Amino acid sequence: MRHTISVMVENKPGVLARVANMFASRGFNIESLAVGETDDQTVSRMTIVSSGDDREIEQITKQLNRLVDVIKVNDLTEESFVERELTLIRISADGDTRSKVVELADLFRAKIVDVSHKALTIELTGDSGKIEAFVDLVRAFGIKEMVRTGKVALPRAPREKK
Amino acid sequence: MRHTISVMVENKPGVLARVANMFASRGFNIESLAVGETDDQTVSRMTIVSSGDDREIEQITKQLNRLVDVIKVNDLTEESFVERELTLIRISADGDTRSKVVELADLFRAKIVDVSHKALTIELTGDSGKIEAFVDLVRAFGIKEMVRTGKVALPRAPREKK
Repeated sequence: MRHTISVMVENKPGVLARVANMFASRGFNIESLAVGETDDQTVSRMTIVSSGDDREIEQITKQLNRLVDVIKVNDLTEESFVERELTLIRISADGDTRSKVVELADLFRAKIVDVSHKALTIELTGDSGKIEAFVDLVRAFGIKEMVRTGKVALPRAPREKK
Repeated sequence: MRHTISVMVENKPGVLARVANMFASRGFNIESLAVGETDDQTVSRMTIVSSGDDREIEQITKQLNRLVDVIKVNDLTEESFVERELTLIRISADGDTRSKVVELADLFRAKIVDVSHKALTIELTGDSGKIEAFVDLVRAFGIKEMVRTGKVALPRAPREKK
């Protein structure tokens, strides 16, 4: 099963390596990882997507919790959460095909961020399914380059009583 | 100086750990790292932001190039590139302050992705400067939680001759 794990860590050299090593030493592939600062510059937040047996992932999250510099680990998989990722894609597009690519971008509410004679660079945000659907549709035009941030996620606000 | 490095790697367990270890062993902090699949599922692309002496960063990129499973390393710092990142922020907002937070979100073309009695969750994309400006403005309302993808970047298309 695919798990989305949120890890709050101290913003220090070596912390990312220790977290990545923990997954690697157990042979788990990290499908995506995004790490950036939070509003507190001494704290970073990682969002890790990895697939594996539920019990093994539970073991990893327990071990992560024990690492120095790890503040908090949250397996979001069981919770309700908002997920988003961002991708930049450079797609072949010349005078003949440009309008077709732009039309698809508009349908996905994507933004055109760079234009040249032979290509368009498009910024798209959404959940993984939306990004994969768009990539599937534009593949026929020719994808020259592509980069994805990997997923970030926040738990949905608990439904407070009125 | 702050460097933005793009690394194409084989999508295999342990690759991220080896890249992170290379930075850690030289005492370099990774400010942000985003790794996700490309349109070829066997290849992942990392975007790493790290600060340091230009010559030392050059040494690291050379060593990265020598790692098994590393396909290509590009220090984008000297090139013209498009950069974007995405953040999700949960901001305190009740009946009295909600409209003020929504107004700021609109000014930044951010999207409201979750609403509760006491908070709004907002999705914002842009370059790092835009995200930091928004965070500064909403801090007064109270930031409950925040996650950033870290920067991704693609070189701008070369200006082909007509």
